[in-house]
Amino acid sequence: MGKVSLHASERVDDLLTNDLKIIQSDEVFSFSLDAVLLGRFCYTPPKGRMIDLCTGNGVIPLLLSTRTKASIVAIEIQERLADMAKRNVELNELEQQIRIIHGDLKDACTELGHGAFDVVTVNPPYLPIQDGEQNRNEHFAAARHEVFCTLEDVVRVSSKLVRAGGRVAMVHRPSRLVEIFGMMRAYKLEPKRIRFVHPRAGEEANMVLIEAHKDGKPELRTLPPLLVYKNKTEYCDELMELYYGKRDELIQQPEN
Amino acid sequence: MGKVSLHASERVDDLLTNDLKIIQSDEVFSFSLDAVLLGRFCYTPPKGRMIDLCTGNGVIPLLLSTRTKASIVAIEIQERLADMAKRNVELNELEQQIRIIHGDLKDACTELGHGAFDVVTVNPPYLPIQDGEQNRNEHFAAARHEVFCTLEDVVRVSSKLVRAGGRVAMVHRPSRLVEIFGMMRAYKLEPKRIRFVHPRAGEEANMVLIEAHKDGKPELRTLPPLLVYKNKTEYCDELMELYYGKRDELIQQPEN
Repeated sequence: MGKVSLHASERVDDLLTNDLKIIQSDEVFSFSLDAVLLGRFCYTPPKGRMIDLCTGNGVIPLLLSTRTKASIVAIEIQERLADMAKRNVELNELEQQIRIIHGDLKDACTELGHGAFDVVTVNPPYLPIQDGEQNRNEHFAAARHEVFCTLEDVVRVSSKLVRAGGRVAMVHRPSRLVEIFGMMRAYKLEPKRIRFVHPRAGEEANMVLIEAHKDGKPELRTLPPLLVYKNKTEYCDELMELYYGKRDELIQQPEN
Repeated sequence: MGKVSLHASERVDDLLTNDLKIIQSDEVFSFSLDAVLLGRFCYTPPKGRMIDLCTGNGVIPLLLSTRTKASIVAIEIQERLADMAKRNVELNELEQQIRIIHGDLKDACTELGHGAFDVVTVNPPYLPIQDGEQNRNEHFAAARHEVFCTLEDVVRVSSKLVRAGGRVAMVHRPSRLVEIFGMMRAYKLEPKRIRFVHPRAGEEANMVLIEAHKDGKPELRTLPPLLVYKNKTEYCDELMELYYGKRDELIQQPEN
C-alpha cells in the first residue's frame, strides 16, 4: 500500500476486491454502483491499451486493474478529482499500469492519437445541462450534468480513440437509450451488448450498460436483467459475489 | 358463436380469454406468444380507432376486442390469411367492431387516410429477406421474412396512419432494436415504453415490446422484464393470469 496524503473531508474506503483501497470525499465525489458495474461489465483485453473518460476519482481504472494487464489511461477534467485519482493510483501502487491525465476529453485525440485504444470506458454525466435543478456544489454538478461535455462529445471522442473493431462501454440512464443508440450509430459505434439494471424485480430499469463495437455489424444482444436487490435490503447473489471478491466481472454470456 | 366454414387443415382453438375462438392451420398460420403479448401490451383507448398491420389470422384484433370498444381495422396481404381472419371475426360475432382488409399495408393511407387512427399495432416479419434459410412454405416465409414489406415500410406507414400524439405498438426481435429505434425516430415515432421478454431468468431476451408516441418527447421507460417460464415447463404467474383470463392486459406501470 503506497503512502499518500489525505485532504480534509477525504477518507479511505475498501474497494471491494483484491484489497483495493480508494480515497473518497462526500464533499466532492464518491463512486456509486454505476461505476462498479461498468468496471465489471466491460470487455477487458488480456493486454493492450484501455482508456477511461470522465474517470472522477479513478474508480473504474482501479477496478479494471484486477481484470487485465492492459495499460490504462484515465482522463478527468476537474483538477481536484484528477488529483484524487492520481493519489488513488499511488495508494494502490498501480503507477506502472494506470496513468491519470488532468484534462479535457475533447482534446484527448490530439494528445493520445486516433484509434490508439482497444477499449474505451465511460460513465458520463447523465443529465442535459438544462434538466432538473443543478447541484450548487460544482463538483457534483459537473459529475451529474453535461457541464463540461455532452453525450455527443463523449460518443464522438470515444469513437475517435478506439481502434477499428475495438469496444466502447458506457453506463447511462435508460431514459436516454434512443438518443444514445442514434448517437453511437452516427459515430460508427454499433451497440452489440446491453444489460438493464433494475433496482428490484417488478421495477423499471434505472441504469443500462452498453457495449458497442467500432465499425461493428448490427446485431444487438440483450443480456439477462440485473436485479440489484433480492429483497428490501439484500443485494442479489451476483452482486454479493462481486462485493466479496468471488468474481471480478459480471456474468458473461457466451459470444454465440 | 357465429357459423363459419372450415377449410381442410384448419381447426378451431380457444383464444385464452372471454370465450374467444380462433381458426388456425398448421399449414398456413398459427398465432404465437408474440402476438398474444402485443395484444396485451399495447395501450387501448376506451373508444376511437385502432388498426393492426400484418394481422395474419386476426389474432391481435380479437384480443384487442376484449379491452376496448374502439373500432378496429386489420390488414393482411395474403389472401388465404385475410380470409381466415374474416371468418375469425364472424366466428366470434365481432363484425360490428372489427373490419378485415385484404390488401397491402403500403396502400393503407390512400384508402384509410392520414392520421386517422389513435393506435397502430404491428407484429411484422422479423427477418430481412436475405437472412437465414427462407421457409419454402410461402405463407410462413411471408410471415417471417420481409417478403411483402420491410421494417421501414411498416414504420413509415404506421407513422402516417397514426394521429399526432397517438401510439404505435410493435413486437420484434431485440437484435434489431438499434435499427428499430433509428427508424422510428426518422419517422417521428418516439419510443416511450419498452419491455423485454426473456424465456427464463438468466437468459437473453428473444422478444421486445415497444410503444412509440407520434411526435412524442424523448424519454424512454424500460419496464420490468417478462420472464416467460418460471421453471422448465411452467409459465410465470403474469402469463398464467393472462391465459386463465384473470387479467386481459400485461401489468401496466403507472405513467409517473
